[in-house]
Amino acid sequence: MEKKREENDIAAKIDHTLLKPETTSQQITQLCEQAIEYQFVAVCIPPYFVRNAFALLEDEKVKIASVIGFPLGYSSSFIKVEEAKRAMEDGAHELDVVMNLCAFFSGNEKEVLKEIQSITQLAHLRNKIVKLIIETSLFSESDLKRACSLAVKAEVDFVKNGSGFIGRGATVEAIAQLRDLLPKKIKIKASGGIKTKNEVLDLIVAGADRIGTSAAIQIIEKVEA
Amino acid sequence: MEKKREENDIAAKIDHTLLKPETTSQQITQLCEQAIEYQFVAVCIPPYFVRNAFALLEDEKVKIASVIGFPLGYSSSFIKVEEAKRAMEDGAHELDVVMNLCAFFSGNEKEVLKEIQSITQLAHLRNKIVKLIIETSLFSESDLKRACSLAVKAEVDFVKNGSGFIGRGATVEAIAQLRDLLPKKIKIKASGGIKTKNEVLDLIVAGADRIGTSAAIQIIEKVEA
Repeated sequence: MEKKREENDIAAKIDHTLLKPETTSQQITQLCEQAIEYQFVAVCIPPYFVRNAFALLEDEKVKIASVIGFPLGYSSSFIKVEEAKRAMEDGAHELDVVMNLCAFFSGNEKEVLKEIQSITQLAHLRNKIVKLIIETSLFSESDLKRACSLAVKAEVDFVKNGSGFIGRGATVEAIAQLRDLLPKKIKIKASGGIKTKNEVLDLIVAGADRIGTSAAIQIIEKVEA
Repeated sequence: MEKKREENDIAAKIDHTLLKPETTSQQITQLCEQAIEYQFVAVCIPPYFVRNAFALLEDEKVKIASVIGFPLGYSSSFIKVEEAKRAMEDGAHELDVVMNLCAFFSGNEKEVLKEIQSITQLAHLRNKIVKLIIETSLFSESDLKRACSLAVKAEVDFVKNGSGFIGRGATVEAIAQLRDLLPKKIKIKASGGIKTKNEVLDLIVAGADRIGTSAAIQIIEKVEA
């Protein structure tokens, strides 16, 4: 019973994720079926598959998260806004949006803020959720403070430590640092290289409200690699 | 004299590239200045910076290449078409477009073709160039044949072996295989991990018409890492 409860608690925090460029529709179907079976909070998938997933998950509790400007963040604001709209029209409940690091590191923070605000306002009007992806491994402490301050101003729902495609993955230190810098109303998603139940538990203790991983089944089943 | 001619010949094939997510406008300015100085055929840069680059290169021979659906290729067709239009409006002469591998490996080749055709037609109407990025390291020989056949049907200008963000980089074998599978009118761009002049020369011999590299200066200056 205790084990079952722990599994449910963990599953309720997991974005069951498949974002490889060669993902197939068959794999997305399997991902959605697993998400229903294990009651993961969401699937996190490429924009291309959101419609397929919506057809499979329409009557289920499992949410659909899609990615915007992913994983490099440097599409133009116009394109990222259109991509967000399209994902929501296709059925996405949650948008994992990569911050424009080019603009950020070029000193154009106003532009970064405007982009995040535009997408977040569009999402909130539709009762959808925005997770802002930064890349903590590329940030100095002062960069991280400024990025968190933009997240607060834009009123995003989550800050996510990385895309999983750049630099190192989620670390306990990075998540604890985000938890320390952000107000409670902003949740934290840990993502990148998370493969074991112990890592998940450590990241949750450090402050993660959501775990993005493509190893969710092995984490729940405790078949540790 | 001989050395100078060789340098010019190489420079005329190089896309001087900076596609890191944390690229700054200062770095783009430097990249453009170097491209003018060394007469590289093009700069290859994030969509976010195309307007900046256009302002710097408007009166120069150096072309601007931007990336579309980069590097994972799984944005929706609608978004990739809009991104292509926007890049051309901003001043891009060349579009490095990632093929939708999700659609391809899901067996939706018609959809892949339609997307590439749409973008290529839009580009050709404006006298712009399309480089179709596949990921040769993810492809079996039969996959590669099918992908090349789509490139031919869509009448793209170049096929490019990879984005540089996925799998292994450009190899002599991959470029030779592409050259073997594609008709002469379709050119080949080699990209990913190219760091030395010898690598460049080998790839050109194997069939590369264009070299995408972020190590162009050290290649020309022969300061080999």
